[in-house]
Amino acid sequence: MIEKLISEIHKKQAPIVVGLDPNMAFIPSFIKKAAIEECGETLEAAAGAVLAFNKAIVDAVYDLVPAVKPQIAMYEQFGIPGLIAYKETIDYCRSRGLFVIADVKRADIGSTSKSYANAHLGKITVGKKSVPVFDADFATVNPYLGTDGVKPFLDVCKDEDKGIFVLVKTSNPSSGEFQDKKIGWNTLYELVGDKVEEWGKDLRHGQYSDVGAVVGATYPEMGAELRERMPHTFILVPGYGAQGGKGADLKGFFDKNGDGAIVNSSRGIIAAYTKPGYEKYGEENFADASRAAVLDMKQDLKNAIA
Amino acid sequence: MIEKLISEIHKKQAPIVVGLDPNMAFIPSFIKKAAIEECGETLEAAAGAVLAFNKAIVDAVYDLVPAVKPQIAMYEQFGIPGLIAYKETIDYCRSRGLFVIADVKRADIGSTSKSYANAHLGKITVGKKSVPVFDADFATVNPYLGTDGVKPFLDVCKDEDKGIFVLVKTSNPSSGEFQDKKIGWNTLYELVGDKVEEWGKDLRHGQYSDVGAVVGATYPEMGAELRERMPHTFILVPGYGAQGGKGADLKGFFDKNGDGAIVNSSRGIIAAYTKPGYEKYGEENFADASRAAVLDMKQDLKNAIA
Repeated sequence: MIEKLISEIHKKQAPIVVGLDPNMAFIPSFIKKAAIEECGETLEAAAGAVLAFNKAIVDAVYDLVPAVKPQIAMYEQFGIPGLIAYKETIDYCRSRGLFVIADVKRADIGSTSKSYANAHLGKITVGKKSVPVFDADFATVNPYLGTDGVKPFLDVCKDEDKGIFVLVKTSNPSSGEFQDKKIGWNTLYELVGDKVEEWGKDLRHGQYSDVGAVVGATYPEMGAELRERMPHTFILVPGYGAQGGKGADLKGFFDKNGDGAIVNSSRGIIAAYTKPGYEKYGEENFADASRAAVLDMKQDLKNAIA
Repeated sequence: MIEKLISEIHKKQAPIVVGLDPNMAFIPSFIKKAAIEECGETLEAAAGAVLAFNKAIVDAVYDLVPAVKPQIAMYEQFGIPGLIAYKETIDYCRSRGLFVIADVKRADIGSTSKSYANAHLGKITVGKKSVPVFDADFATVNPYLGTDGVKPFLDVCKDEDKGIFVLVKTSNPSSGEFQDKKIGWNTLYELVGDKVEEWGKDLRHGQYSDVGAVVGATYPEMGAELRERMPHTFILVPGYGAQGGKGADLKGFFDKNGDGAIVNSSRGIIAAYTKPGYEKYGEENFADASRAAVLDMKQDLKNAIA
């Protein structure tokens, strides 16, 4: 799977993921108003607004970027209607030729992690029939439970040609509380990074494996260090833009060929119309603002990698 | 919230949680057959079988135990229909007077973790209306992202009178891979345990706080050590029964009054009819086998704690 994503990054010349994290605060009021007029102040209305918003963004950027990353928490918060919108978002993005990275950060003990892996990437058997469920291309995975929690995802990656990104060094301010702790000569995140390399050993396609890592744009020195330390691990980089990561800081996440990483921006793109420099588009043209923000991000990263 | 759970444990004299993890392999074939006859080999059929199975188990044990713990992965694997069955299971259990521990093991960066906390324990605002979503009493939380990932859950615990259990030492074989690593004089799971005590400081009701810990029955020495180390932290103990934990090993998880812990059994109870000693009930009477297994577990724990 990873080689397909890399090929699409090359084709579109954009190592960019658009984070589809549709916080209600980002959704233009005319969309919310229409949804509430149709369904009342209900979860259905919220979910309807989310889906309409997502589709407009996707229509505006699908030819520019290789992938999207819906953050399932933003859909789960609206219960069943929200999760229906999540599934419809995945299907819509795939129909537009985009790779879908399900940002679910799941993991559990082995037998349970298998259910998560089937749910998000694989198939589930009912009677004699095998049915895909949420059917994303990649999923994010939490490493705290160790190999047991990750192994079922590796199996599904192999069987169904999918990929994962394991949390190594997350972008949030308190990520160092445990992740940066020294264990002998290494930090916890370095040990997790070493495991990610190991987990990906049988899933390599060229330089990189289907087992990637999440490393936050907010920690550029650690990103550069992990790039060296995990030579076969593709890096998903959240935290660009709204969380403080800048293009100039990201060079170290990429390898000498300019490969090896894909950078996510959520708010910076989907809520661009509320940000300085894009306000001129106005709420009505929020999707045009998103397109402009993608083009600017593409240039910012191009300058950084060059 | 924790004081209410403790009071119910006292009333029923059973520090027991029934894990509602309805793997298809545990569901009697007559239930699956009926569901497939009604809905075909679909996710709806699987979800229907899960719900019918859960209700029968709950009807057979609700007067004996204070709480249930649905494992959301077992529902998520059946997509939207599965998640509808998850929500209906929560509502059914609450209508039967049971506390519901949502085993979701969620966590993300702060703004996203807030959405998870609202989804599983709190309320979400649509327009001017606040709506509960999955509305469990407790949720399990993954600590890998540090305080940012946990704080939004603490806020919801305070505002909505709910509780959480943070993964400290999980029951699976590879849990030590990261959790047991030495950081200075302590292990990672000990440092996480110290944080759990700290996170619960403002949420104490009597001896214990609304911020509990998950510590596997499969590691009884670590359980006893953590019981001492986290004097205000109630412990949720998975791994009893099918995963290998025995009542006799569990004394150390409890405090000197016999409080401080609640033990989960999933397969050992819900699939009792397939286990030695309960096969006599037969598949048709699977719920009676579950009731008998709860009574035996109650005695086993009573012997252990005494």
